[in-house]
Amino acid sequence: MSDPEVPDTEVLALDAADPLASFRDAFEAPQGVIYLDGNSLGQLPKAAVGRLDTVVREEWGRGLIRSWNDAGWIGAQARLGGKIAGLIGAEPDEVIVSDSTSANLYKLVVAAMQARPGRAVVLSEPGDFPTDLYMIEGALRTMGGGRRLELRANADIEAALNAEVGLLVLCHSHYKTAAVRQMRELTRAGQAAGALVLWDLSHSGGVLEVDLNGCNADLAVGCTYKYLNGGPGSPAYLFVARRHQQTLVSPLSGWMGHARPFDFVDHYEAGGGIQRFACGTPPMLSLAGLEPGVDLALEAGTPRMAAKARALGDLFIRRTDGLEGVRLASPRDPSLRGGHVSLSHPDGYAIMQALIARGVIGDFREPDIMRFGFSPLPLSFAEVARAAEILADVLATRAYDDPIYRQRSAVT
Amino acid sequence: MSDPEVPDTEVLALDAADPLASFRDAFEAPQGVIYLDGNSLGQLPKAAVGRLDTVVREEWGRGLIRSWNDAGWIGAQARLGGKIAGLIGAEPDEVIVSDSTSANLYKLVVAAMQARPGRAVVLSEPGDFPTDLYMIEGALRTMGGGRRLELRANADIEAALNAEVGLLVLCHSHYKTAAVRQMRELTRAGQAAGALVLWDLSHSGGVLEVDLNGCNADLAVGCTYKYLNGGPGSPAYLFVARRHQQTLVSPLSGWMGHARPFDFVDHYEAGGGIQRFACGTPPMLSLAGLEPGVDLALEAGTPRMAAKARALGDLFIRRTDGLEGVRLASPRDPSLRGGHVSLSHPDGYAIMQALIARGVIGDFREPDIMRFGFSPLPLSFAEVARAAEILADVLATRAYDDPIYRQRSAVT
Repeated sequence: MSDPEVPDTEVLALDAADPLASFRDAFEAPQGVIYLDGNSLGQLPKAAVGRLDTVVREEWGRGLIRSWNDAGWIGAQARLGGKIAGLIGAEPDEVIVSDSTSANLYKLVVAAMQARPGRAVVLSEPGDFPTDLYMIEGALRTMGGGRRLELRANADIEAALNAEVGLLVLCHSHYKTAAVRQMRELTRAGQAAGALVLWDLSHSGGVLEVDLNGCNADLAVGCTYKYLNGGPGSPAYLFVARRHQQTLVSPLSGWMGHARPFDFVDHYEAGGGIQRFACGTPPMLSLAGLEPGVDLALEAGTPRMAAKARALGDLFIRRTDGLEGVRLASPRDPSLRGGHVSLSHPDGYAIMQALIARGVIGDFREPDIMRFGFSPLPLSFAEVARAAEILADVLATRAYDDPIYRQRSAVT
Repeated sequence: MSDPEVPDTEVLALDAADPLASFRDAFEAPQGVIYLDGNSLGQLPKAAVGRLDTVVREEWGRGLIRSWNDAGWIGAQARLGGKIAGLIGAEPDEVIVSDSTSANLYKLVVAAMQARPGRAVVLSEPGDFPTDLYMIEGALRTMGGGRRLELRANADIEAALNAEVGLLVLCHSHYKTAAVRQMRELTRAGQAAGALVLWDLSHSGGVLEVDLNGCNADLAVGCTYKYLNGGPGSPAYLFVARRHQQTLVSPLSGWMGHARPFDFVDHYEAGGGIQRFACGTPPMLSLAGLEPGVDLALEAGTPRMAAKARALGDLFIRRTDGLEGVRLASPRDPSLRGGHVSLSHPDGYAIMQALIARGVIGDFREPDIMRFGFSPLPLSFAEVARAAEILADVLATRAYDDPIYRQRSAVT
């Protein structure tokens, strides 16, 4: 452990120079916790407490059905999508908030494969975020016609792009390693082979500089409860480039995506623009809880958030370098890394439980990955340095040998 | 208008004898409003305010990622489904809360048609709730293979059940007229023809006696933000009879329905039982907001709720009988009617806006239907009698001729 009497001048200087330091006050932070899991569930923006209280007591309690018009519930999915567009390099009319990331992926996989009728293959990576692969499997099983998912290691993706591939689906930043895929080059390669390309931004939106239109992206989905601090299970977003919006049709053709939902006609007619990718009635409480986190991210701006996340990760990597049995499982080069840093250790699960008992909350992914997330708005450099010290202490004292730390929970 | 000096003895007696009268205090009720739109968005249970505050401040704010285990978030979809089962004649392991009614319908349409591979037709009614028809269209367009939706008027449904029909989809209580379809007889008829039968309980769950297993039902979906008072856009539920749970597979095969979601393996393996029909991460705030309404309904019990809704509707029908230009668009026989009463009038839209301006909130459905919902827990007989009086006054004074009442809103 560092000597508490000796000031950590590097960390003091980093915090003093942090242009986002004032944002820390905008979040609730539980006492005695260093929260390094904002890549899984972001912290509560203080403004969300008041916003949700208003939605519950005023808009639901007193406004009731009138709030669909008077409180703007009916337009909230498009309005919030328009805000998120500003964080991912999209135009406001290219993004909508709707359903879960899983459901949005399904919509776009089916729509894309219907737009590439002669092609049977969706190409992706093994080890990509599992629900993405599961939803592709579900979509292709529904469509039938011999369509199939093929998985190729990242290095082999470009070589596997042939005339059979209708859609390439990739995660921008990998959920285990945080490795960033080259969006511009892979988009170009996929399109050159005649495929559409779909990016999952769940681990990059709100923490990396994402430039969908600058990369000529076709399609994207993303999660809002990680770096956007939208609350547990807050609704996800999807992006469809303007040039594809009139040709792609969502299989989840619910009334919220209809051209005239309140005419209550018997047949589906897809609405104009991005609205056609909405489906059923959105969960308004979860949708409303999402907005304060998005507003904070817009105020901070992605360049500053990305720079700080990289710097927090760099500090953590340097301060954990050489710890016994620990291997860096993320790229050391910050330009190739998303918002978290993964360390592997054969006892990773038990070590993470011991860390959590000491107030350092990260998470574990099979088989041996400890993930530490560096959400740029609520965290200080001092917290990250302290977390590295506690990890070193847990390893040095073998605190993780206690059998209590080997018990498995339902959710890891 | 009735003379306020003369006591309305019938109404006084009805309220005095109401075994559910004490439940009125469990709901927020805006001042000066008679709310007859609980069939569209139910009122706010007072207990939901505190529950949501705890979920936001404690579970999200302080528990953070730990709340998936410690606050039971991970099991909430199945646990809430198990509660709702008690309101619709199902076993607890046959119902799960997940996604929207639209998305759930899609899951079950695809799963059912895959289980009936030789059959190309989904049969339903014209004028059924539109998003149901839209989702069937979307599901069949995705599946391809010549599958198609056929619509037959209710009286012709049984005759249309032939060897081509793989699935019959019907609303238990019709959203416009509240007419109740004969679940037992139509389920039997559909099954006799070799089809599966899917019931939409959105306008009956929580207000009518629904007996899914007593009717040998196969499949059902339902909405929670109407008579279950779950909050705007609260997640929907779906029912799959135990005998079908191992053979039907959801096309929306997300990680929450996987056999081992936290093993993060590359391929989908459907979980056991009803859990396989979950999809992505559920919107926890909206899910938590739903529970107090469900608990109140369970405490009241469907027999008492159904009896009171019928009695409220009967009172309204008798007190609006013979009003000029008004036609009853719902069954007069309460055993054939759901929780709302519809009146048609050529100026229905403007009349409803004039009523809303006078504090009586119902809603309007094209082309000429005024809907008045009789949610049994928050309403009194006196309120319903008063609403009938105000309607009579609006008609007698032609208050609805004011052009302001002809302006259309986004949501009607």
